[in-house]
Amino acid sequence: MNEERENIDTMIDEFISEKNYDEIAWKIEELLSEKNYRAVKDILSELNTVDLAEVFYEIEDRRLPIVYRLLPKELAADVFVEMDNEQQELLLKKFNDKEIKEVLNGLFLDDTVDILEEMPAALVKRILKQADKETRDSINAILSYPEDSAGTIMTTEYVSLKENYTVTDAFEKIRRTGPDKETIYTCYVTDKSRKLVGIVSARTLLLSSPDDKIEDIMETNVISVDTHTDKEYVAREIQRYGFLAMPVVDKENRLVGIVTVDDAMDVLREENNEDFSKMSAVTPSDKPYLKTSVFKIFLNRLPWLLLLMISATFTGLIISAYEDSLLAWPLLFACVPMLMDTGGNAGSQASVTVIRSIALCETYPKDAFKVIWKELRVSVMLGAVMSIVCFGKLMLIDSLYNDVTPVLAFIVSLALFITIILAKLIGSTLPLLAKKIKLDPAVVASPFITTIVDALSLIIYSNIALAMLG
Amino acid sequence: MNEERENIDTMIDEFISEKNYDEIAWKIEELLSEKNYRAVKDILSELNTVDLAEVFYEIEDRRLPIVYRLLPKELAADVFVEMDNEQQELLLKKFNDKEIKEVLNGLFLDDTVDILEEMPAALVKRILKQADKETRDSINAILSYPEDSAGTIMTTEYVSLKENYTVTDAFEKIRRTGPDKETIYTCYVTDKSRKLVGIVSARTLLLSSPDDKIEDIMETNVISVDTHTDKEYVAREIQRYGFLAMPVVDKENRLVGIVTVDDAMDVLREENNEDFSKMSAVTPSDKPYLKTSVFKIFLNRLPWLLLLMISATFTGLIISAYEDSLLAWPLLFACVPMLMDTGGNAGSQASVTVIRSIALCETYPKDAFKVIWKELRVSVMLGAVMSIVCFGKLMLIDSLYNDVTPVLAFIVSLALFITIILAKLIGSTLPLLAKKIKLDPAVVASPFITTIVDALSLIIYSNIALAMLG
Repeated sequence: MNEERENIDTMIDEFISEKNYDEIAWKIEELLSEKNYRAVKDILSELNTVDLAEVFYEIEDRRLPIVYRLLPKELAADVFVEMDNEQQELLLKKFNDKEIKEVLNGLFLDDTVDILEEMPAALVKRILKQADKETRDSINAILSYPEDSAGTIMTTEYVSLKENYTVTDAFEKIRRTGPDKETIYTCYVTDKSRKLVGIVSARTLLLSSPDDKIEDIMETNVISVDTHTDKEYVAREIQRYGFLAMPVVDKENRLVGIVTVDDAMDVLREENNEDFSKMSAVTPSDKPYLKTSVFKIFLNRLPWLLLLMISATFTGLIISAYEDSLLAWPLLFACVPMLMDTGGNAGSQASVTVIRSIALCETYPKDAFKVIWKELRVSVMLGAVMSIVCFGKLMLIDSLYNDVTPVLAFIVSLALFITIILAKLIGSTLPLLAKKIKLDPAVVASPFITTIVDALSLIIYSNIALAMLG
Repeated sequence: MNEERENIDTMIDEFISEKNYDEIAWKIEELLSEKNYRAVKDILSELNTVDLAEVFYEIEDRRLPIVYRLLPKELAADVFVEMDNEQQELLLKKFNDKEIKEVLNGLFLDDTVDILEEMPAALVKRILKQADKETRDSINAILSYPEDSAGTIMTTEYVSLKENYTVTDAFEKIRRTGPDKETIYTCYVTDKSRKLVGIVSARTLLLSSPDDKIEDIMETNVISVDTHTDKEYVAREIQRYGFLAMPVVDKENRLVGIVTVDDAMDVLREENNEDFSKMSAVTPSDKPYLKTSVFKIFLNRLPWLLLLMISATFTGLIISAYEDSLLAWPLLFACVPMLMDTGGNAGSQASVTVIRSIALCETYPKDAFKVIWKELRVSVMLGAVMSIVCFGKLMLIDSLYNDVTPVLAFIVSLALFITIILAKLIGSTLPLLAKKIKLDPAVVASPFITTIVDALSLIIYSNIALAMLG
């Protein structure tokens, strides 16, 4: 028996390190059909809550409630919060009132709110009935903050201390209230009117003598954010300062909650995912790629492709308008893709750099002139080198299979020079403009800029050709 | 005097919340030229170490050593570590041996290594001379780990406990050794041969009774990584599990160090920056955009633009080869930009999604068939809708300014259909292939895929036209 247990242990360890959660799920389902609940419990007790949620994801819906009920009691709520929304909904619907109450008691407030936001109204009503009045009020308060604000991701469960406490008093309070707090590593010192006056870390407390007064050891240069501050900004500040938590205050500087580093990391991952998606003209999805359905992926991509295709009608229109000048010279026609691609690449180099810099809170719309001046110098240098190389390439390589005259090569190179400058200026200013008018800079990224640059560069190209060739 | 102090406080608070670090720097320089060192000290003591480093960045080089020496002693090393590499070098060169020793003593080992890696050899030699033998050995050990491995970002300064300790023993050890440890919030339990057998958080310690044995309260399902594990993977795991630190073990499962959450966040920010850069064909820079020189930006962008321009020679070659079939029909020619742009967009939608999914450790090369099957279905659906809309658009809109026949519209639509499918398949498989052969998936992102898709789609387009029109 003991040997069998050890075998399972080794197997599970291997599956976990390879992230083969489906294999663990199969093993569990096999044991369930053998009614070997003891072995299932053994496996479950071997796993971390995050890994358990991954395993649960692979378990059949009809078996999920059984497996969930086999979890050690103290892990149940922690696993629940890590689970997929659809599975949470499925479980909540199967739970009796007592089970709902148990989960609610085990969850931190910010997680409860996150879950409630994804559940259907009838279920939310049933859940809130099981919460005590205080919890219900706190939930409603968090739900009332504007979308994407610090208020929506903060938790109200922090340790607060008073200035006149001693270190011993502080530890006593931490021991008494700690189990319900999301973090006990940073404690917040407030005055009578709940105004935040200082912070003290558990580290400082542990390294101080028992009789030290909190007011003597606390840090008074407190950095805090407002409930209405954008959550991405809060997350970036937590990262920049290396904090474990950031206090959130209301308009009167009264402490109302904290944002912890793990939530900050989740916000940043989500925001990065969104930026990557938007920059490649895809509607962001909150599910991992392999877990997103084909139809959903199709829907996330279709509108953008359609929009961009239809806006490319302009380039068609321009080509048709100038077809006499372009079609007359095969070389000019053959260079259209090179010119368009280079313009697109030059534009996206600038736009992605600026979009990223805005996201990192390093560049603001007020820096527009600095950005334009910088990009102008960069683009003139790039344009000069690129057009010289292009001229050389046309005369030496393209002349092997096409009729190249110095005048034609000059037209292409000049158009390239102007296209690069235009692409850089448009690529760097559009995101700033978007930010200024409170749009998401990432949405005006490469694909849109490519479309605009394409149209402009074709007009310039054709006009240069017309002017020089008549 | 007191009022003046308060005025400065309010002003500084305002500058900080607006991130106007340059204004604080100007104020400091003004006070320095008045030799009002006391006021400078007051300002410095008001600021957080991270903000101090930002202010220092704006201070003139010649004044930097003076301002640095005015810092409160206990902050000096913490500020130093946050500073720009060039400023660190400047200060180290100005420091006498005693000052170098002080900074070394104040730094955590992982930070020391980060700084040394950026300094010129002669300076490194001088610095290492001031370190004691133990520190020097630890530094050399960290420097010997492979690039981008967990070993290079870990710190060896953690709290280790023994199984037979009581909670009181543990606190005693934390008090004694804590000040030199990077974190005291997670303690690591090791056996006689330094093998990692469990972890216990400061939270658990604080909430247990003084006589509890560590072996009874420690968590034994320990998740750890190897010294050679990729640092991005480690950072993602810290994020996924919501850990404050991740233990790092050697091949014999002996604990050698830990990676803390703040370093994990820095790794992720850096990796995200790199991915954004590479995806837009820019060599990544480790400086913020506005702080990077024009020439450096030029150098980061030029090689990629050149490479992509020269590879676009292929598309020119293809157009020249098929020019008879394409140039004969103005509509076919006018549709080239639309076809190329849509192919590029469709490809980058797939490639960015897959690159991101690989970066998040959600998709591996072993999933190639799942990915291909998924993208095949998505692309057939997208291709079908897109080509139907394209056909309609050509017949209804483009016919207003160009000669459109149903056969020509069909040729464009069919080429679009095939282009979208090809773009999706190439866009999704190339990053996986890159990962498989240990290249960075982000490098084969949109611009390269666009170039390949452009060439292929032009060949298909021309061949369809040739086959149908003769």
